[in-house]
Amino acid sequence: MFGQCIDNVRKNAPLVHNITNYVTVNDVANMLLASGGSPIMSDEPDDVVDITSICGGLNINIGTLNKRSIEAMYLAGARANELGHAVLLDPVGAGASKLRTDTATGLMEKVKFDVIRGNISEIKALALGSETTRGVDADVADAVTDEWLDSAAEFAKSLAQKTGSIIAITGAIDLVADNITCYVIRNGRPEMGRITGTGCQLSALITAFIVANPDSRLEAAAAAVSAMGLAGEIGWEHMKPEDGNSTYRNRIIDAMFHMTGEVLDEGARFEIK
Amino acid sequence: MFGQCIDNVRKNAPLVHNITNYVTVNDVANMLLASGGSPIMSDEPDDVVDITSICGGLNINIGTLNKRSIEAMYLAGARANELGHAVLLDPVGAGASKLRTDTATGLMEKVKFDVIRGNISEIKALALGSETTRGVDADVADAVTDEWLDSAAEFAKSLAQKTGSIIAITGAIDLVADNITCYVIRNGRPEMGRITGTGCQLSALITAFIVANPDSRLEAAAAAVSAMGLAGEIGWEHMKPEDGNSTYRNRIIDAMFHMTGEVLDEGARFEIK
Amino acid sequence: MFGQCIDNVRKNAPLVHNITNYVTVNDVANMLLASGGSPIMSDEPDDVVDITSICGGLNINIGTLNKRSIEAMYLAGARANELGHAVLLDPVGAGASKLRTDTATGLMEKVKFDVIRGNISEIKALALGSETTRGVDADVADAVTDEWLDSAAEFAKSLAQKTGSIIAITGAIDLVADNITCYVIRNGRPEMGRITGTGCQLSALITAFIVANPDSRLEAAAAAVSAMGLAGEIGWEHMKPEDGNSTYRNRIIDAMFHMTGEVLDEGARFEIK
Repeated sequence: MFGQCIDNVRKNAPLVHNITNYVTVNDVANMLLASGGSPIMSDEPDDVVDITSICGGLNINIGTLNKRSIEAMYLAGARANELGHAVLLDPVGAGASKLRTDTATGLMEKVKFDVIRGNISEIKALALGSETTRGVDADVADAVTDEWLDSAAEFAKSLAQKTGSIIAITGAIDLVADNITCYVIRNGRPEMGRITGTGCQLSALITAFIVANPDSRLEAAAAAVSAMGLAGEIGWEHMKPEDGNSTYRNRIIDAMFHMTGEVLDEGARFEIK
Repeated sequence: MFGQCIDNVRKNAPLVHNITNYVTVNDVANMLLASGGSPIMSDEPDDVVDITSICGGLNINIGTLNKRSIEAMYLAGARANELGHAVLLDPVGAGASKLRTDTATGLMEKVKFDVIRGNISEIKALALGSETTRGVDADVADAVTDEWLDSAAEFAKSLAQKTGSIIAITGAIDLVADNITCYVIRNGRPEMGRITGTGCQLSALITAFIVANPDSRLEAAAAAVSAMGLAGEIGWEHMKPEDGNSTYRNRIIDAMFHMTGEVLDEGARFEIK
Repeated sequence: MFGQCIDNVRKNAPLVHNITNYVTVNDVANMLLASGGSPIMSDEPDDVVDITSICGGLNINIGTLNKRSIEAMYLAGARANELGHAVLLDPVGAGASKLRTDTATGLMEKVKFDVIRGNISEIKALALGSETTRGVDADVADAVTDEWLDSAAEFAKSLAQKTGSIIAITGAIDLVADNITCYVIRNGRPEMGRITGTGCQLSALITAFIVANPDSRLEAAAAAVSAMGLAGEIGWEHMKPEDGNSTYRNRIIDAMFHMTGEVLDEGARFEIK
C-alpha cells in the first residue's frame, strides 16, 4: 500500500511550492527531487500567488519566518485553497515564541490545511494556542512513547477532528491521524535527530505524497513518514565508522533516491489504532 | 583552449559578488571555491554597491527574489556596469510568474549583461517578454534536441544580437552564443537534473570564467559550461551503487576542485555553429 | 583541559540562537549538532527576543546582513545581555563595506560581547573603525605568521582590553586572547580555506563552548578553535584522492561528531603567550 504511494510520486512528479526556512531549504529541495517530486521556492508576497498556481501542493514551514514571508504564507495559502491544492503546515518552533505560535494558529484559522506536521511540543502548542482548536485536550506526555501511545493517538485524532487536518506528530514513534484512524509508525533511527532538517524534509515529502495520491491522503501521509524513516535506516547501513551527521544527511537523501515501492512495502513498520 | 580558461581562473582567483537565491547558495559558494574563484554574497541595497565595487564580477540570480533583493540587483548592476565588471543574469523562473519575468526583463533594460544563462523556457520567456528583445522569434522547441539544433542556435544568436549579451541556454545539449558564433556543448549527464542548483552553480562559474578571461568572453563562457558538464561526468564515475543525488552534488563540486586545464581540454565535447 | 570543555558541551547540550548568514547556515546548524549543542535560527525583530530568551547563547554573524536582520541583532543582543547569556560577534566582511563596518562597530557599542571572532583584516577593521576601540594600534601585518606573532598577540590583547571581549583572530595560526593571556593555536589545514563557512561554523561552536563552560570562557573559546582545526585535520585523513572541498565539508563536521575530550586533548597544538 505505502509502496504504491511512492510509485505515484515518481510517476506524477508533483511540483511543490515551498515557503520554508533558509536553514534546511537545500536539503528540502534535494529530498523532493530524490522522491521524484520537484521543488519551487518563493516567499515574496508579490510572487507567491503566481508560483503556487502552477504547483500541485504548498508546503508552509515557519522555521525562519519574517513579516514578509508571513504575508506570503497567507496569500499563498488562500490561493492554494482556491485551487484545491494540497497544503501542509510545519509549525517550527510553535510554542517557543509568541510570533511563531500566533502565525501558526493564525494560518490555521485562515487556511485549510490538509496536513499539520510537527513534533509533540509544537503540536501541543497549537492545540492550546489556537482558537480553532480551543478545547482540545493537550494534556498528553511530552514525548510519544509506548506507555503514552493510546492517549497520544487519541490526542492526534481529536485534534484532527477539530481542525479537519491530518495530524502528523513525529518523533521516536510517529503518529499520523485523521479523526478516525491513527497510523503508528516505527521506522527511523535516533541519529536522525543529530541532523538539522529531517523534519523539514519530511514535511515537503508529505506534501508531494499527498499531491500524487489525492484519493488516499491519510495513507499517503503515513507512507511519506514511513519512507523518510526507512531512508534513515537504509542510509545508516551505508555509514562507515568515520562518517558522522553531515555524511548521514547525504545518505538519507541518497536512500530516498533509490527507494522503490517494493522496498518501502517491505521496510515499513506500522500499526493502525 | 577551454583548458587555458580554467587555468586563468585558478591563477587570477576572481572575486564574484552573488545576489542569489538561498536554496542553492552554499553549493554556489563551494563551486566557486572549487574552481579557484572566491565568493561574496550580499543582497541588501545599502551594502551591495560597496561589495560589488571590490569584486571582479556580479552574478544576479532571481531564484528567491524579493522586493529588497530586487532593489539590490538594480543598484549592484548599475555599479558593476560603471566599473566595467563582468555581469551575468540567471533568470530563474522567468515565465513562471509576472514578478520574475518583469524583474528579468526590467534588469535587461537597465543593466548591460555580459551573459544571460537559463534553460530554454526561461530564455524564451525573456525573448517574448522583454521590450528590449521584442521581435525576436521565440518560436523554437521547448527543449534543445538534435532535431531542433539549427533553429535553437539561430534563436540564441538572434537574441544575442538583440541584447548584446552572450546567451547560454543549458539543458541536455548546451548552447553558448554571441551574435555570430554558437558553441554546441555535449558534456554533462541527465542525473544532474535530479540535483537542485547545478544551473545556479554554473551561472556563478561562468561569471568567474569571464572575469578571469576578459579578452575571450564567449570562449570563457563556453569553457565554464563544458567544465560544469565534465565535472558531472567525472563525479558520476566515482558514484557507488548506494550513492544518490545528495552525494552526487558533492561529487560534482569535488570533480571541479580537481579539474586541470588538461583534463578539461581532453574531456570537452563541443562543436561550433 | 580542552577535552573537558568539549565534554561539557556534550553534557550540557547548549541551545544557541544564531542570527547568521544564509550561505553557510546549514553547516552551522549541523556543526552545532555535531558538537553536542543545539541550534535555533531566527532573524525577525518580532521573534528574536522570545527566541534568545530560551537559549543559552547568541551568535551574531553579519555575513548577509540586511536592515531587518540588523534590527534583530540589536534587539537580541540587548536581551541576551540582560539575561547574562554568552554573546559572540562574527563581523563577516567588516572593512569591505561601510554598512558592515558600521554594523559591527555599532553592535560593539550597544552590546557586550563575550567573544569577537574574525580573520585578521576584519578584526583590524573593527580596531580602526570603532569608537569603542579608537586608539588601538591596528598596525599589525595582514596575516598572523610566526614572524609577526608577538605583535599580533599584543594587538589581540590590547583590543581585548579595550573592548572587554575575548578576541579570536583565526587564520593559518589562530589567536584567542583576553587582556592578559593569548592562546596561539596551530591546529587546522590550509584546505579549510577552500570551503565556505568554516569560520561561521567556528563562531557558532565557540558560542556553544562558552555557554557550556561559563567559568573558563577563555579556555573554552580556545578549545573550540582547537577542536575545529583538529576536526579539519582528522577529516582530511579520511579524504580519498577523488574527494574535494564539498566532501571535505562533510568530513570536518563528521570528525566533530566523533570527537571526544581525549582525542581533543591529544590533538590540540597550542602555546600560551
